Amino acid sequence: MEQERIDTVQLSEQVKQLLESKNFREIQTLLDQLPAQDCAQVLENLPEKDMPPVFRLLSKENAAESFVEMPTDKQQLLISVFSDAEIKAVFDEMFVDDTVDVIEEMPANVVKRIIAQSDAETRAQINEILHYPKDSAGTIMTVEYVSLREQWTVKECFDRIRKTAPDKETIYVCYVTDDKRKLLGLVTVKDLLLHDYDTPVSEFMEHNVISAGTNDDKENVAQTISRYDLYALPVVDGENRIVGIITVDDVLDVINEEATEDMAKMAAITPSDVSYLNQSVWQIFKNRIPWLLLLMISATFTGLIINTYEATLNQLSTLLFACIPMLMDTGGNAGSQSSVTIVRSMALDELHPSDIGKVIWKELRVAVILALCLSAVCFGKLMLLDGLLFGYAYTWDICLVVSLALFATVLLSKLVGSIMPIVAKACKLDPAVVASPFITTIVDALSLIVYCQIALAILPAI
Amino acid sequence: MEQERIDTVQLSEQVKQLLESKNFREIQTLLDQLPAQDCAQVLENLPEKDMPPVFRLLSKENAAESFVEMPTDKQQLLISVFSDAEIKAVFDEMFVDDTVDVIEEMPANVVKRIIAQSDAETRAQINEILHYPKDSAGTIMTVEYVSLREQWTVKECFDRIRKTAPDKETIYVCYVTDDKRKLLGLVTVKDLLLHDYDTPVSEFMEHNVISAGTNDDKENVAQTISRYDLYALPVVDGENRIVGIITVDDVLDVINEEATEDMAKMAAITPSDVSYLNQSVWQIFKNRIPWLLLLMISATFTGLIINTYEATLNQLSTLLFACIPMLMDTGGNAGSQSSVTIVRSMALDELHPSDIGKVIWKELRVAVILALCLSAVCFGKLMLLDGLLFGYAYTWDICLVVSLALFATVLLSKLVGSIMPIVAKACKLDPAVVASPFITTIVDALSLIVYCQIALAILPAI
Repeated sequence: MEQERIDTVQLSEQVKQLLESKNFREIQTLLDQLPAQDCAQVLENLPEKDMPPVFRLLSKENAAESFVEMPTDKQQLLISVFSDAEIKAVFDEMFVDDTVDVIEEMPANVVKRIIAQSDAETRAQINEILHYPKDSAGTIMTVEYVSLREQWTVKECFDRIRKTAPDKETIYVCYVTDDKRKLLGLVTVKDLLLHDYDTPVSEFMEHNVISAGTNDDKENVAQTISRYDLYALPVVDGENRIVGIITVDDVLDVINEEATEDMAKMAAITPSDVSYLNQSVWQIFKNRIPWLLLLMISATFTGLIINTYEATLNQLSTLLFACIPMLMDTGGNAGSQSSVTIVRSMALDELHPSDIGKVIWKELRVAVILALCLSAVCFGKLMLLDGLLFGYAYTWDICLVVSLALFATVLLSKLVGSIMPIVAKACKLDPAVVASPFITTIVDALSLIVYCQIALAILPAI
Repeated sequence: MEQERIDTVQLSEQVKQLLESKNFREIQTLLDQLPAQDCAQVLENLPEKDMPPVFRLLSKENAAESFVEMPTDKQQLLISVFSDAEIKAVFDEMFVDDTVDVIEEMPANVVKRIIAQSDAETRAQINEILHYPKDSAGTIMTVEYVSLREQWTVKECFDRIRKTAPDKETIYVCYVTDDKRKLLGLVTVKDLLLHDYDTPVSEFMEHNVISAGTNDDKENVAQTISRYDLYALPVVDGENRIVGIITVDDVLDVINEEATEDMAKMAAITPSDVSYLNQSVWQIFKNRIPWLLLLMISATFTGLIINTYEATLNQLSTLLFACIPMLMDTGGNAGSQSSVTIVRSMALDELHPSDIGKVIWKELRVAVILALCLSAVCFGKLMLLDGLLFGYAYTWDICLVVSLALFATVLLSKLVGSIMPIVAKACKLDPAVVASPFITTIVDALSLIVYCQIALAILPAI
């Protein structure tokens, strides 16, 4: 695989040289044999001025497919130099769902130009898709599917498929509908191939069809397709009329995107659907600064807590300060272990807010064993490593205070870390945003208070 | 979608009642109309003693498919009560790749029983797949694909497909090979449908076939299928002979699993392929404790640093201690923002170690703007909020020390956070493991030293 991956950087160099020597024919041959994804990459690597002339050399089909694969800024660049006829040529070749994807990222004046070049039917379809809520099944579906009638024979079905195949995103799963487009069942091409030419479809079609509603969240759709190993999922409106289908390849992108988004949120970043290298410094800054500011300011609490207890801690033992980072880090790590596990399980639909009881009971037991183990090691480490080896005056009672505080910190962070995402989900908030960094801040404050209180209770003033 | 999801808990109750009233016929009807995934879930929810009798009621096909979907412990339970004939019945219905998935999780004596019941050809295939390296393309491929010859006509191809379809995982992408199984090209059923019955396949088959090697990492395979929107990818050996195919539905699971694994590693957890609710307390403990221990012990450094500087800091201003948590948290957050972004971009194959220069340059600029912004706000916050509002004696020079230290911390964490995963990847280590928690520990230590040094340089002793 790795060794077979096409080196697009080197290809771009080659295209640049061919362009200089005006060897257009060869550029054409070179690019039209590439998969559209790689062709788009080669075009992206070219200097801005070279990109449009090279794009114009592509075959109609390759041009449309490559266009879909390019980042928004390059698409805009191309549209800005395109004539209306060129826009029409490119968009006529595209599936409607791809057109909508392009349109959604474009400024209003560009959208107008694109819409103006499409025929009435396409325009109606575009408008319909554009009206579905953000991240819903409606926005990722394609309207180019094969529909059959239940009284048709296998032969009639094949005739229909043959006639419409070139314009359809998939022909392998066909949907049986009545004349009001109501979804009655599905038939695969495999089923059709395994039955005689004169068998009516109604005899062998699958009646229990799993479907999605137009407003369903695309993440749920993705997990349904993944759970049932489907090749395509029909999307129906409120009256069970089929309006489109979602194919598994679109869902691959959704699954990758959703995982990327969740990771970004858990790392305190506003998610972006632009890949890292394509984001400007300013965009990256904007996605990161609000969370850093918010979390920095909320860390004020930990500062206040330390200031409040400082005089007392200083009186008890100055060695207590040195253990604060360890306590805070361990609490943060223990908490994010739980929160990330829970957030991910909920994203994969393996865990639901109704399981909260099971989760608390499980996390509590895990937390007790972890806390016992960690505080025992911590006690030993302080006495032996810091005390004997490095020669700091860690007496047994100081070690006891730190270990007890560690025990409490681990318990607290595990509970906060597992409960908060579930509560967030139940309140229709995004569990991933609540996860990691927020929990760290809360756990920091809680564990500091516990630490100081335990110290006050156990240690005699110096 | 949500409202249509089958309620398996309720169904299990229903099955339990039907079992008590010995209404076996109805259980059969009820379960055989469910998708295998849901049927497996219903069986899982049953009490252990009820599961085998209910399983025996399933149709042969549903039994095999549901068996594949069950967690390992339930599979083992069933096998332990199965007769040899029952084992044969279930495994004969399964695709070889599913059999291998089951076998890989079973203890040796169970594996022996399963292998003993399979025919010689299947046994050979199982053995071959078992010998591919962990996480390689060979382990997730299926050997049931359709192969065609280039001289065949469309009609001959359809005859072949009709004959073999019931045993093949997919028939929609067929591979054209020579008589030594060398991969020559591919043909889709759509292509076949669009050509006349007497056209030879060689006239329209696709020659540029993207393929994977048996030893390629399954994660790369998944990203290739996702990048090129493929429905299936052929797996070839060193001599370009096709040995199997990987279909997109297998890849969905890989993509979900890999994202889950990366998230677990970034949250300092040893990844597990068992879902959270199915893991025992002991398993969860074992996956979490090593990292917590390791990170706790490595936090010794921060403790030592504080102990070293403590007397001096106390002399300068006791208020300096209160800012340590804020500095450490902000450093940790800033660092994990970068590391998570980089790790994810590399996992999606959008970023390669060779891009390290671009990454450093980009992160450096982002870091400077972020650091300027954060330290300005921090200065203001300390002076106004902590100083004026809460009445602590934060003088302008203490605020300056904290802000400068914050500036340095953000710069350091961004650089460490972005460079470490890339270096890890270049050294063939796992970037996700290196990410978040490790980086936090390093950044904590570095920023504490910087903080103390800046304080020593700027502040006059009290």
